[in-house]
Amino acid sequence: MTNDATNPTPSALFAQMRDTSPLVQCITNYVAMNFAANTLLAAGASPAMVHTPEESGEFATIAGALTVNIGTLSPQWVEGMKAAAQSANQANKPWVLDPVAHFATAFRRDTVAELLELNPAIIRGNASEIIALGGGESAGQGVDSGDPVEQAEEAATTLAQSRNAVVAVTGTVDFVTDGTRAVRIHGGSDLMPKITAMGCSLTALVGAFVAIAPNAPFNATVAALATFAAAGAIAADTANGPGSFAVHFIDALYGLDANALNAKSRIETLS
Amino acid sequence: MTNDATNPTPSALFAQMRDTSPLVQCITNYVAMNFAANTLLAAGASPAMVHTPEESGEFATIAGALTVNIGTLSPQWVEGMKAAAQSANQANKPWVLDPVAHFATAFRRDTVAELLELNPAIIRGNASEIIALGGGESAGQGVDSGDPVEQAEEAATTLAQSRNAVVAVTGTVDFVTDGTRAVRIHGGSDLMPKITAMGCSLTALVGAFVAIAPNAPFNATVAALATFAAAGAIAADTANGPGSFAVHFIDALYGLDANALNAKSRIETLS
Amino acid sequence: MTNDATNPTPSALFAQMRDTSPLVQCITNYVAMNFAANTLLAAGASPAMVHTPEESGEFATIAGALTVNIGTLSPQWVEGMKAAAQSANQANKPWVLDPVAHFATAFRRDTVAELLELNPAIIRGNASEIIALGGGESAGQGVDSGDPVEQAEEAATTLAQSRNAVVAVTGTVDFVTDGTRAVRIHGGSDLMPKITAMGCSLTALVGAFVAIAPNAPFNATVAALATFAAAGAIAADTANGPGSFAVHFIDALYGLDANALNAKSRIETLS
Repeated sequence: MTNDATNPTPSALFAQMRDTSPLVQCITNYVAMNFAANTLLAAGASPAMVHTPEESGEFATIAGALTVNIGTLSPQWVEGMKAAAQSANQANKPWVLDPVAHFATAFRRDTVAELLELNPAIIRGNASEIIALGGGESAGQGVDSGDPVEQAEEAATTLAQSRNAVVAVTGTVDFVTDGTRAVRIHGGSDLMPKITAMGCSLTALVGAFVAIAPNAPFNATVAALATFAAAGAIAADTANGPGSFAVHFIDALYGLDANALNAKSRIETLS
Repeated sequence: MTNDATNPTPSALFAQMRDTSPLVQCITNYVAMNFAANTLLAAGASPAMVHTPEESGEFATIAGALTVNIGTLSPQWVEGMKAAAQSANQANKPWVLDPVAHFATAFRRDTVAELLELNPAIIRGNASEIIALGGGESAGQGVDSGDPVEQAEEAATTLAQSRNAVVAVTGTVDFVTDGTRAVRIHGGSDLMPKITAMGCSLTALVGAFVAIAPNAPFNATVAALATFAAAGAIAADTANGPGSFAVHFIDALYGLDANALNAKSRIETLS
Repeated sequence: MTNDATNPTPSALFAQMRDTSPLVQCITNYVAMNFAANTLLAAGASPAMVHTPEESGEFATIAGALTVNIGTLSPQWVEGMKAAAQSANQANKPWVLDPVAHFATAFRRDTVAELLELNPAIIRGNASEIIALGGGESAGQGVDSGDPVEQAEEAATTLAQSRNAVVAVTGTVDFVTDGTRAVRIHGGSDLMPKITAMGCSLTALVGAFVAIAPNAPFNATVAALATFAAAGAIAADTANGPGSFAVHFIDALYGLDANALNAKSRIETLS
């Protein structure tokens, strides 16, 4: 990619992250909160986990962006998610939806249907989640994907067009589309699905990037995924398993610079 | 042990775990969620943290097994636990109870009394918890055990008989009984009580093993404890303290094979 | 400092921690729970996360001290915090307040105002939080401080006097005052703000120290901060980034002794 204001490159956005330390409101699940916060801090952003409806809407006007992940739902949290998303919309702040295992129960399906009506700028999920969001038959049961990313590319494109959102499908090779443009992102490590909250933390990082590029959600998403892929590839070089991978991943993200970001991830332009 | 369908060995069950990746619903405490999920992923299982009564019962019919840990209770979570346990019973799915510090407050005592009525297949606790469940005087105050495992063996046997459940008491040397058979499991490390959520994560792993052997809860429990003991012994060889132990433990669990499982844990048959 | 019963030194209190393993009730946020529990275990204390109003007050009479951190608030948790603080007061147990980002929303401001009326023995915050508690204009937005500690020293002194509490402002150099006495504590590492929950875990550790010295909250706070500073300085020697820092920090805390505590932290007496 050539960097310009309307089409910023991952490394340009990454440099801005380090310079501006955007405040990101994350409404995420109990499993992911700690790792997601450490991911944002290592990347240079400032995370804030603020979920209750008594304050989630007010905080969404202060934060640069909002992320909503439905991993460990309950009714009061759903109210907080909706209040925050509505407030983000009113304040023209972008928000990111992570529809964890939304096909698994009626409560999840209903919640995601309500959240989709609140116009997320970006939707990030695994292949099973994106296929099911597009109305297809996925092999997923729980939170782990049962489908390869390639099988979700068509569903992602349709979803991006119908929802006027950027859609990211993450897995061995990631796919990002805004309905017109589409790229694949290569990098990362086979160990990543073996560490809980990696996907949820990636959603948080997408929020951090779109906070600094609210008018370029496609580029922000690509930058977040490339950053994750690069840090994952670096961590894999020295990890002995998923425990040390998680530690090295945070170190790698903290130590990442533009050169390593470009060298350790690869963006394949499809359209 | 000789492996056969009704009396499977730890290494046979461990191989099945890797092959089948059972889906395990964990209703556990906020402290343990991340480590418990990483424990299950490293062992080869697929964890799902689904707790709210709006969906916990529905999800229990999908999962291979359910685990319930009362570490950080509140009334809505208790409703979710009960709905999930009832649903697991109706669907003939085994469930595991971890009665964290149940003697500490009236709310905990009442909750555990209600949960016991829902027929857990397996109960896992530390010595203080199992002694107190059996009606004895324990030295426990908070979540850490104040009693040695040996002092809980009699209470465990009585509890197993009265509740028709497998009971596991974990500590320096673990004890497992179904009221007739009884074994001790040796291995692990003195560092393990110095890392929070080790016991809660072991409960989750018991759930993963019983998901693949629902008709052999005694063997499943022994297999989970032997797996934990082996990974703990391996991690201790290279840890510099509880921080690195936790990291190495996940790596060791991920890298474990049948040989290391048998070499690094020892099962002493008592009856 | 010269050690005596009314003015105990950090190393004297640290030795007592290892000997007596105080039970500490922590009502803290979802992000911090795991790391805070591991911090207390590594230091030698016994953490218990008990938050719901149905049991938080009862548990506060059993624990040696209580800590309250408002990081991830909701109304039911506020009720639990208040019940626990009231009960701690009645039982003459000291409690510690950590007013995370209390200036960010009306809900937070109101909650902290209510909690302050319940007479915390110790208040610990970052510079932005303490300046705002004193009624000043802080540069903070989210949970990360936007102000240097030195700018909060005056606000801390005023707050300590008006609330009859010990006030600790933590950052690159920490400041502790009871309104009369004041010290600065040097040590730690620049990496510490890059790891989430470090401040929250320090609050928990302050609770552990004041549990063993309920009549010397100033000394207990200084001891906790010196312990943290020493472990942080040791961890920084071998860390490659915030991921490995967090691991080494727990190892360092676990391995700490009186000599290292004194060698790796420095207490500057101001008054």
